[in-house]
Amino acid sequence: MIDILDRVRNKELRSRIVTAEEAAAYIKPNMTVATSGFTPSGYPKAVPTALAKRMEKEPFKINLFTGASTGAEEDGELARVKGIHKRMPYQTNKEMRNQINSGEIDYIDMHLSESAQFVRYGYMGGGIDVAIVEACAITEDGNIIPTTSMGNTASYVQQADVVIVEVNVTQPLELEGIHDVYVPLDPPHRLPIPITKPHDRIGTPYIPCSLDKIKYIVPCDVKDHTRPLGEIDDNARRMSANIIELLNAEIKAGRMPENLLPLQSGVGNVANAVIHGFVESDLKDLSVYTEVIQDGMFDLIDAGKLNFASGTSLSPSPEGLERFYKNIKEYRKHIMLRPQEISNSPEVARRLGVIAMNTAIECDIYGNVNSTHIMGSKMMNGIGGSGDFARNAYLTIFCTASTAKGGAISSIVPFCSHIDHTEHDVDIIVTEQGLADVRGMAPRERAKTIIEKCAHPDFKPMLLDYFERADAMTKHAHTPTLLPEALSWHQRFLETGTMKK
Amino acid sequence: MIDILDRVRNKELRSRIVTAEEAAAYIKPNMTVATSGFTPSGYPKAVPTALAKRMEKEPFKINLFTGASTGAEEDGELARVKGIHKRMPYQTNKEMRNQINSGEIDYIDMHLSESAQFVRYGYMGGGIDVAIVEACAITEDGNIIPTTSMGNTASYVQQADVVIVEVNVTQPLELEGIHDVYVPLDPPHRLPIPITKPHDRIGTPYIPCSLDKIKYIVPCDVKDHTRPLGEIDDNARRMSANIIELLNAEIKAGRMPENLLPLQSGVGNVANAVIHGFVESDLKDLSVYTEVIQDGMFDLIDAGKLNFASGTSLSPSPEGLERFYKNIKEYRKHIMLRPQEISNSPEVARRLGVIAMNTAIECDIYGNVNSTHIMGSKMMNGIGGSGDFARNAYLTIFCTASTAKGGAISSIVPFCSHIDHTEHDVDIIVTEQGLADVRGMAPRERAKTIIEKCAHPDFKPMLLDYFERADAMTKHAHTPTLLPEALSWHQRFLETGTMKK
Repeated sequence: MIDILDRVRNKELRSRIVTAEEAAAYIKPNMTVATSGFTPSGYPKAVPTALAKRMEKEPFKINLFTGASTGAEEDGELARVKGIHKRMPYQTNKEMRNQINSGEIDYIDMHLSESAQFVRYGYMGGGIDVAIVEACAITEDGNIIPTTSMGNTASYVQQADVVIVEVNVTQPLELEGIHDVYVPLDPPHRLPIPITKPHDRIGTPYIPCSLDKIKYIVPCDVKDHTRPLGEIDDNARRMSANIIELLNAEIKAGRMPENLLPLQSGVGNVANAVIHGFVESDLKDLSVYTEVIQDGMFDLIDAGKLNFASGTSLSPSPEGLERFYKNIKEYRKHIMLRPQEISNSPEVARRLGVIAMNTAIECDIYGNVNSTHIMGSKMMNGIGGSGDFARNAYLTIFCTASTAKGGAISSIVPFCSHIDHTEHDVDIIVTEQGLADVRGMAPRERAKTIIEKCAHPDFKPMLLDYFERADAMTKHAHTPTLLPEALSWHQRFLETGTMKK
Repeated sequence: MIDILDRVRNKELRSRIVTAEEAAAYIKPNMTVATSGFTPSGYPKAVPTALAKRMEKEPFKINLFTGASTGAEEDGELARVKGIHKRMPYQTNKEMRNQINSGEIDYIDMHLSESAQFVRYGYMGGGIDVAIVEACAITEDGNIIPTTSMGNTASYVQQADVVIVEVNVTQPLELEGIHDVYVPLDPPHRLPIPITKPHDRIGTPYIPCSLDKIKYIVPCDVKDHTRPLGEIDDNARRMSANIIELLNAEIKAGRMPENLLPLQSGVGNVANAVIHGFVESDLKDLSVYTEVIQDGMFDLIDAGKLNFASGTSLSPSPEGLERFYKNIKEYRKHIMLRPQEISNSPEVARRLGVIAMNTAIECDIYGNVNSTHIMGSKMMNGIGGSGDFARNAYLTIFCTASTAKGGAISSIVPFCSHIDHTEHDVDIIVTEQGLADVRGMAPRERAKTIIEKCAHPDFKPMLLDYFERADAMTKHAHTPTLLPEALSWHQRFLETGTMKK
């Protein structure tokens, strides 16, 4: 209790310290609750857990808005008790995914950079009833020092009627100063976001909040429930090698500076493998302008190769988090956490010229990408920030292993069963088979290149056969498509368990 | 000849005045030729016509890069003689479309805001051999005063080995001062684009060019071959009324200022009808931040309702062009032409918060939009600037009549046969039947709303039947899709001439 008192620096506020159960009691059925958290980092833990317990006895639903996915104590608990009606803008929880795909949860899958402004513009219904925010500390003036993620928290605090702060004593106070909080004005008053380098500081190290707005303060001593990192497998290693070869060629051709341009990489093993590849490469003076900062970035910092990483969330593995905490004084010199509206800003991504590396579920022969749906209907996770970066990057790369489900599914298909990124937004497609550079290519040339370079040998003849028949049947139309067959590979998988004939 | 000498203000340069045939002789097979022009406005006329004549006798091909579509003397003539190998980034010419769909022309259909930087980044092959630029005049220093469009001309002049200037004596000298030429630096040196209001001037009134770079100057006395405007039909009038009703409701709800936010509208009759609707409305102090400035904007200026219109091209009807020329001294106070990289800038569109109104070929029940392809395979025109605006607007509206081909085609379909704008980018869908506001809706809710509000009564039961069966078959998956049927409506049209069963 001493620790939490120290962290609530305004004495008056200390009288609002309550238990998680007391705070959770404030939340009424059908309220819209917006929380901190982006990946299982910096999300509230005590109040959502208490709320879920209450919902077990007294079932009701709320709308839940966050930065992105959150941890077991929030998305997991609230899904377990079927406590969610509307959810935005991203999630990765298994039980929640099931409820999204059984129609129990209305899920709004949005570009992450747009979610805060969507709320501020008044597009998400009746505003925000309560914001629940994990904090390191609360300042004398009521301002909130966030923890391991920024997400949409600053906008949610601004827009909420009432704020509940979870002061998490497991989060080191050295996090203070790592955040750069900037909420743009809305049109017609918005100004340029004055970032021209990844390390530019443009805001405050805290979330502005008035003393009045803070309804309750809840102590919490539960650590971020971060996810272990998968093994880097051979496929990931090969994709990583393909990407590093490309980037070296771009430098050689004079299309990229010697220290590249700011890197953005999605979550996951391929991203991690690529970053590991950089550690072993000759590249140096690198910078990162991304969404999530993962273990590999710590390796790059340790290797003296990464000057600065700007993101909205620390998303390390459990070991990575320990490592970060242990060496936080050094790492914080190289890391900044911004609101996701800024970390994923189309304006900034295009200005800085990021190299965007994201993962596809499947990619079609013309370069359209599906990032979200399994066999057209079922939501996997969501688009996340991939669209923010892919559309605006200097170079847009999508990676996917050429097959899935032990070879039964080809990730290169005649026609994507859902499209999140159109042909207009994709420069490079990478599989473990190779790399298709489709910049400046018309669709028919793209199809030949993608099939040749990226498809698995098991599916290459089928894809070529499809393309050649489509080309002949449509008399070489711009984008030859055989409508009755375009989605037949997916249907065959649903019926027979394999896309193979 | 006196007039052209006056317009070539540097005396030394006058010795480079040659005939169109002499200038065209400079162009060699397989060269990449980049020209001014955006819609049939401000494109070179004399040299492309002479080049086409030469190609008639001595067939060869070039790559042709422009701002967007151009007029009969350029796209029309060069397509007629089959003189084009690669074409980017947009076109609307019938003969060219045929060659794109017969595989004779490789067409790169790009976001218009990205085309100039794609060239500057070195992504379009071997650079630009020749830029051909229509000008009002050339200054003492060799700088070029453009005419009725800005397009990509400034970047093409910067990147070209050699520049040929067509000085068009039919273009009034009063155009001088209407342009605002700003070419961003490329990453990692790019700075914020300092526009916070549509009328902000940030560049020069001319295209910077050195005297050395200008190889030839060609006189031209052919006027812009602009397109007549179609009649505003009942459907367009109804869509326009639906949009104006929505915007008034947004103002009333406090989600939009009294004078709205800057308007962006695509080319065509619906756009024109909407703008006409504004003329008759109570709205005032409007502003426009768009790609093309059409006749309706002159009406709005005349009515004292439009304060300022920023675009990259004047695209009036022939009568509109005459009207503009006649009253140019007044209109130029209210109009600015910028490079398309700036007029369509994601950064600026999002900052200003434009209201984006564009036309769809078809839209699916989940809100994905096809802007480019007929029945999946055949290119119509191209994506143009619709993606630049749709992704970044404050409010993104797509319009389409609910049916096409005399009712044989439903523009609301189970699954788009090609996708240019994903569900993540679409707020509002408008047909003559009604308006679907899908902001904050999950896909199943969106489907019901789009079918209910937008579909034609002839197709509504079929769409509902599809959706309900998909929903049941997939057990309420996030985006219920029946893969074997998803594209069957298009196939039925190809086979039977109607989507109806």
